This record gives sequence, C-alpha cells and structure tokens, in this order.
Amino acid sequence: MPVQKAPEVVIYRLPLYLRALALLEKEQVSTISSLGLAQRLQLTSAQVRKDLSYFGRFGKQGKGYDVKKLLNELRNILNLNRVWNMALVGVGTLGRAIVNYEGFLPNGFKIVSAFDINPDQVGKRVGNLQVEHMSNLQNSIKEKDIQIGIIAVPPARAQEVIDLLTANGIRTILNYAPASVRIRPGTVVRSIDPVLSLQSMTYYLKT
Amino acid sequence: MPVQKAPEVVIYRLPLYLRALALLEKEQVSTISSLGLAQRLQLTSAQVRKDLSYFGRFGKQGKGYDVKKLLNELRNILNLNRVWNMALVGVGTLGRAIVNYEGFLPNGFKIVSAFDINPDQVGKRVGNLQVEHMSNLQNSIKEKDIQIGIIAVPPARAQEVIDLLTANGIRTILNYAPASVRIRPGTVVRSIDPVLSLQSMTYYLKT
Repeated sequence: MPVQKAPEVVIYRLPLYLRALALLEKEQVSTISSLGLAQRLQLTSAQVRKDLSYFGRFGKQGKGYDVKKLLNELRNILNLNRVWNMALVGVGTLGRAIVNYEGFLPNGFKIVSAFDINPDQVGKRVGNLQVEHMSNLQNSIKEKDIQIGIIAVPPARAQEVIDLLTANGIRTILNYAPASVRIRPGTVVRSIDPVLSLQSMTYYLKT
Repeated sequence: MPVQKAPEVVIYRLPLYLRALALLEKEQVSTISSLGLAQRLQLTSAQVRKDLSYFGRFGKQGKGYDVKKLLNELRNILNLNRVWNMALVGVGTLGRAIVNYEGFLPNGFKIVSAFDINPDQVGKRVGNLQVEHMSNLQNSIKEKDIQIGIIAVPPARAQEVIDLLTANGIRTILNYAPASVRIRPGTVVRSIDPVLSLQSMTYYLKT
C-alpha cells in the first residue's frame, strides 16, 4: 500500500525504471543496488530509494532489489499487464505514421479505431482499420472499450478534439499536435514534443 | 562561466525552464521566484536554484529571477539564437509526417535535406525538398552545414544510419525509430518514444 501519494514526476520516471530493469533482466542480472539502478538512470541512489518507497518496500538492506520481482511490481503499478485499446483522431500523414508505428503493440498498446472529420478519408483503410467519421466516436469508445486517445490533427484543431474525447469519457490522451492545450481536472495529457529533445541537444553543439 | 559541468539531467530540464519562462513572458510576468518557477515545473525551489547555478548567478536574493533576462541567458546557453539545419533520413510515412511537422521552424530547426535508400523515392518531392540518395549524405552535410540528423527508418535499419551519420560528423541525432541504439562517445541521441509517455499515463487508469 502506498504510504503517500506519489508526485507526478515520480510517475514520469517509473517507465524509465521499467525499461532499465527489463534490460537488466535481459542481461540476466538478478539483483541490483539502488546505486546501480541510479547510475543507469542518471539519478542519485537516495532518489531511487525515495521514488520506489512511494509504492512499498522492494529492496532488502544490503542486498539490493530483486530485478524480476521489481519489474513485475512496476508492471502492476503502471497497469501494464493487459492490452490498452486506443483511438486515433486524425489520419493525415502523421496519423498514418502513428498507425504504422511498430512500438505500440509489443508494449500492449493497440490502436483499434481511427477517426477523421474529412469525408474523403472516412471509409478508407489505414493499416488494418477503416477510417470512421468523428460522429461515431461515442459509439466506438463504448463498443471497443477504448481508454486512450491519440491526437494527430492540425495544431489549431487539437483543443476541440481533446474536449470531445474527454466529453466522451477518455481521461488519457497522447497529443502529437504542436499545440499547448488546456485540460480538465482528472485528465492526463502527454505531448510528444521533438523540439524539447532538440533543444536539450543543441547545448552540446558548437556554434 | 559555469563553475562545474552540468549533469545531463539538468540539460534535459533546461528546455522546460525555457518554455515556462516564455509562457511567463507572454503573461507579462517580469520576475519570478525560484519557488514560483519550481511550482510550474513540479520541482523543488532548491532544485531550481541548483540547476541554474551551474550556469551562473541569475537570481537576486529576495527578488527572484528577471524573466526576460533569464530567458535570454537560457537561449544563449542552449545555443538557440540561430537556425539549425537538419537532415532527415527515411522518407516513408513517418519521414513525410516529420517533414510536415509545424513545430520545428518556429523554434529554429529546419530540415534542409531528406535522404532515402529506396531508388523509387530518390528525386521525388517531400515538402519543399527533393529526396536525395544516401550516397549524397557526405556532400550535403558539408554543403548545407547540417548539424543534426533525424532518423525515420525502420527499427532494424536505425543503427547503421546512426553509424553513417556519426561517421560523417553528425554528433546530434533525433531518433524516431523504436529501436535501442549504441552511440559513440561525443554523440548525443534522443529518442522520441511515445511508449514511455503512454506507460506514465496508464498508472492513472482503472483496470
């Protein structure tokens, strides 16, 4: 049982722990110290112990963490022991690239519906899906048990699509549009923002 | 003058400071305390002071930071007062979406060359560019003063493209392929990884 609610920054880091542990498992490492884990994540060992302490007691004094066990615990904490159905909104060039992205399914994320407002797109195939009109959003979300929305519309349309998704019960949204958006309390939006990545690299470049 | 080399995690955070400060400037806020900045970034005020201390003394005791001044300093630190030329490798669906991405240019990042290995693609137009063959990589990088590479090839091809780019002097790479890659010392690679974002949201979902 968590003693205290984990702050959002800690939740952001958990997938990084997960990935580091999955790699350790692959390397057949069975236990790892908080320092060892910290070094792989560029954190301090105190930070690692604090982050994980929000979710229970995983390490043994002087013995470190059991890799397999911690990996399973994190998968449970992050609700990753199931497939999550996702709806894509916007099937332009970006949307089509997202449908074809090979990283989702092996990690338990499945795009089960694709929507567009453009009548020329509706009914067309994209990957294994047939593009649905936005008016079908409510039906599909219910019928297909969709819990996650992906936004791939032009930036000027992002806000209205987010509002529409949340009005239909979607509380978890991945936004690919380069737009800053307002969200309702209880909704989580993460934006894919390649500019942040670029800006953290130009630091290292000589001008 | 930096007193001590800033760790990579701090460099990762600087674009977030930049964005928060740009928003404050837009809101016509002229000064902000380390606590105020910390709250916008979900950090502690001690962390904010420590992060910024790597690059000089920006705040005045009891007066906080001058928003405009700190914004300019960060732009200088991150080398953002210029346009950076980028080369895209891979003009499949994903590559075409990247060329059309509206977020790059307003932030000073410009795709000036697009490459592919597929002879059917070479010579075709993508956005305002004409697709070049990979054999032209070395020439174009020199002629167009390209400093950043963007990878949009299938995951199985990512490593060889990264090796090719670094062999041609590119030290800064944005990787869209869902593949873990090895890099040479002195090279910085950031991967766009939507799965990490999704995994940090499913925590909040009821199963």
